[in-house]
Formats: sequence, structure tokens, C-alpha cells
Amino acid sequence: MIVTSQPSEFSELLEQARRAGRTVGLHPTMGALHAGHAANVRRAALECDLAAVTIFVNPLQFGPGEDFEAYPRDLGVDLELAEAAGAGVVFCPSTEAMYGRSPLVTVGVKGLAERWEGARRPGHFDGVATVVTKLFALAGPCTAYFGEKDYQQLVVVRRLVEDLSLPVRVEACPTVREADGLALSSRNRYLGPEEREEAPGLYWALLAGKRAIEEQGVADAALVVEEMHRAVRRQPLVELEYAAVVSPEDLEPVDEVSGPARLLIAGRVGLARLIDNVAAEKEDA
Amino acid sequence: MIVTSQPSEFSELLEQARRAGRTVGLHPTMGALHAGHAANVRRAALECDLAAVTIFVNPLQFGPGEDFEAYPRDLGVDLELAEAAGAGVVFCPSTEAMYGRSPLVTVGVKGLAERWEGARRPGHFDGVATVVTKLFALAGPCTAYFGEKDYQQLVVVRRLVEDLSLPVRVEACPTVREADGLALSSRNRYLGPEEREEAPGLYWALLAGKRAIEEQGVADAALVVEEMHRAVRRQPLVELEYAAVVSPEDLEPVDEVSGPARLLIAGRVGLARLIDNVAAEKEDA
Repeated sequence: MIVTSQPSEFSELLEQARRAGRTVGLHPTMGALHAGHAANVRRAALECDLAAVTIFVNPLQFGPGEDFEAYPRDLGVDLELAEAAGAGVVFCPSTEAMYGRSPLVTVGVKGLAERWEGARRPGHFDGVATVVTKLFALAGPCTAYFGEKDYQQLVVVRRLVEDLSLPVRVEACPTVREADGLALSSRNRYLGPEEREEAPGLYWALLAGKRAIEEQGVADAALVVEEMHRAVRRQPLVELEYAAVVSPEDLEPVDEVSGPARLLIAGRVGLARLIDNVAAEKEDA
Repeated sequence: MIVTSQPSEFSELLEQARRAGRTVGLHPTMGALHAGHAANVRRAALECDLAAVTIFVNPLQFGPGEDFEAYPRDLGVDLELAEAAGAGVVFCPSTEAMYGRSPLVTVGVKGLAERWEGARRPGHFDGVATVVTKLFALAGPCTAYFGEKDYQQLVVVRRLVEDLSLPVRVEACPTVREADGLALSSRNRYLGPEEREEAPGLYWALLAGKRAIEEQGVADAALVVEEMHRAVRRQPLVELEYAAVVSPEDLEPVDEVSGPARLLIAGRVGLARLIDNVAAEKEDA
């Protein structure tokens, strides 16, 4: 496995691979890798000839008062995990190397990026879109793997690729969960023992909403959301931020569920702000 | 010469060329090609193995009340001129092909893009940066040729490439002028005969400013600007919008000229809004 912190070397390695006829899979991360990332890297390594992982805690996507400084960083462990999962290249640039001169260019995504996470974290998705555009430009043509856990990010990145005609195929990777359902997240490290016990409540609430739609045939989204709220209240340490039933394509809230929908949830558990989501589909009556 | 309106075919043609070991030169235009464009295409064809020209009147870079509808379009003449200048590929997409779904993604350039032309044409450079990012993504690694006539655009594009690490080398092409000094521009077609006679006044004012700096040793930018204003007033049909002495890198106005500077000018002549610029350098005293 080759590890580089130099943007030009990273570009050159991937370009050489393509020139040699190899396909490139890219998994952009902020490090603090866990078994969810490992699954994504394994898939990239399985589906492409070269799996590249980027590790960069992108300051542009953190707001004031967020956890940029506290965000877990442990490059040694990350490199071991990436290598074990089959990565051939790891790119771990410094902030200086990425944004040497303070960048003037921002990539923004209207509408899509302004609701849910975007409403709570102003500028977050502009930061994501900007760094992803830059990482894609450095990487060149590739298949990029993004986790479904950050569902809105996935939709934003798909739109970015479409609108800017970036030479990238985006693949969604299923969320990896603990045995009790908690979605793997680098921010789970912030949870104390009791918080950890209650944190899967977000997922249980999503399942309650999904059951309402798929098993009880509830079509009224307000009733589904009520069901999710009720489920969350069973975990007093989980402070709900939002629970919603949305269109899977544009993340607009739906009134009546018909066909495929996405259930989104976000909340705070102690110091951790956690998000999660599941697909739910209403069969025709 | 291959002409295509299909983004995917355009990408594929350039990718094939690169795979065959050929270098690609790109000249993005809005059509209405003139001898200035022809010089840029000839240079691209001379310096690269394949010269590609894009012709697209980009609605995103026109404001309300600007001349998007009136902007001259004559594809047949453009294709003849491009071929004669040595273009191997011309890409002339429809608005539908470029922006089929109304685009949500915007590429913005702070600071740089907000003064001079950006102040008079709000959103103009966001439109430029967005379409150029998309054209670069479609074209892939290349050398891109931009005219110095649109000097601020050139600086914005350079910054775009740097900040987003786009795999593009930007080359500046000198302004081509009529015998009387008028910079070639597609918008010169809007000039009536008397307006055409006075329109070079913008360039003559630039030369007056350049002489003040280079021959008379004037260092006070306010005096240089005054000289330019005085020169413009000799052409009553030229309505000055701005004349400025700026740093060539970031387009900030300078107070004292020392070393290289750029003189910018913009004005209206009848229905035409024209811009021009020249380099000027103050030698050490």
C-alpha cells in the first residue's frame, strides 16, 4: 500500500493505474475509520483494480462550535485498517496541502443542501461539495463509494456529479450497524456507556416508522413521524432533532407515502450528534 | 473536423485522443467567432495535437436585462472559422444538453469575482466558473486557452483551477485588435458606424494610462486613472463605467504603482458594453 500526503503524487498514482488499464475505486473519508469504512474499502477493492482511500478532516464542512478540533484522528490505526481492507493507495494530505492559499472557490448545491442537515449545519454541504469536487479532480475518472449512513451527503454528491458532469460513477454503500442496530459512526466514540446503550434508539425509531409504512400500511407521513417521535421518547438520553419521511431523490418531505421513501432521523446523545436513515416502501393498496 | 452536440461524445473524443498519446488544447467560446478566437485556436492547434473548441452561449453568466437573447449566434460561420484555424473537434451543445435538469450546483469565486465586472454583473462569474468547471470536467486533462481581453475572467479561471486542483493548464492569449486599437469582441457587432469610430477610445485611454506610468513615471494610481478619464472624455459616445489600476494577480486596486500592474477599463458605446485592459509596468526609480 502506498501512502502519500502529496496531491500531485496521489493524482499521478491513480493516473498511472488508469494508463495501465486498471480501474480505480475511491473512498473519501475523514479518517477515524471503523468497520463501516472497511466494508466500503473492501467493496472498492473487489469491484476495482485499485482501491484508493482519502483521509482528510475537511475544515470547510465544519461550522463554528462544531467538533472540528475534537474530531478523532488516529492515522496509524487508519492505515492498518485501510491496508487490511485492501486499499492500494491512501491519500492523507495536510490542510496546508489542500488549501494552501485560503480557497476563494466554493461549490454550492442549492435546495437539496439547505434542508435537514444543511439547515442545522449552515455551509456544511458547500464544504462537502467543495472538497469532494477537489478530491474528484485530483483522483480523475473513478468509481466513488459513499456510505448511505450520510444519506443527504450521498444525494448531494450524486447531484454534484450530474450537474458538473464529473467523470465519476457514484456507488452507495449500505450502512453497517452494531448488533443492537446503532449505525457505525466515528462520532460514536463520544458516547458514554449509558448513552451508548440508548443511542440505537434513533435506529429503533426508524424501524418503527418503517413498520408503520410497510406492515401497517400507514400512508399519512405525519402519522409515521409521530410513530418515530413516540419511539425516540423511550430513550430519555436521546434528544431528537428531526424525524422525517422524504422523497429518496430530492429529500423533499412527503405528505402521503406511496412507493419508495426515505426515513431520516437526527439527534443528540450526550456530546454526540448522530444521524441515521432507512429506506421504506409503501406497496400499492 | 468532428462536430458534436453530445457531451458524452465530446468527452469520448478527447479521451480517445489522450489514450492515443495526443495532447489536447481547449478553447471555450460563446461562438460569434472572430479573428481573436481564430488566433487562439491556431495557437491551440500549434501547441497541442488536438485543438477542441466549445461553442456555448451560457445562460448562467448573463444577468436579467443583459444580452443573452441578442447575443450573436451563427454556427455555420463559426464552424468554418474554427476549421480554418485548425480545430479538430467542435463541441456545440444545446442548453438542454448542458443543463437538462435545472442545475442546483453553482461554483462561486469569492472576492476576486465580486469587483469590477462582478460588481456590475452580479452572478456573472459564478456562471462563468460553473460552466467552465463543467466544460473542463467533460474535456478532461488539457491545456485551456483564454483570451486576455476578458482579463478578470482569466484570473478567475486560474484561481478556479488552483483551488479545485483541476487537471488543466491555463494559457493566456494576447488580445487581438483592429488597426485602430479596438479589441476584437463579438459585441462590437452592436456598434453603429459613428460608435465604431469612437469605440477604440477605451483602448486609447488605456494607452494614455500606460504612458503615464511607463514614460512619465507616474506612480500615483489616482493620477493615472485621471489621465484615463481625461482621454475617454475625448469620445463623447463612450460612456465610461470604470477605469482602474489594479494588481495583476488579485485585481485589488493599487494606490502606488510599483512593478507590474494591470489597467482595466469598461464602458458603454451605444448598445455595446465593452471592456478592455493592458499591462503596465513601473520601473524602479
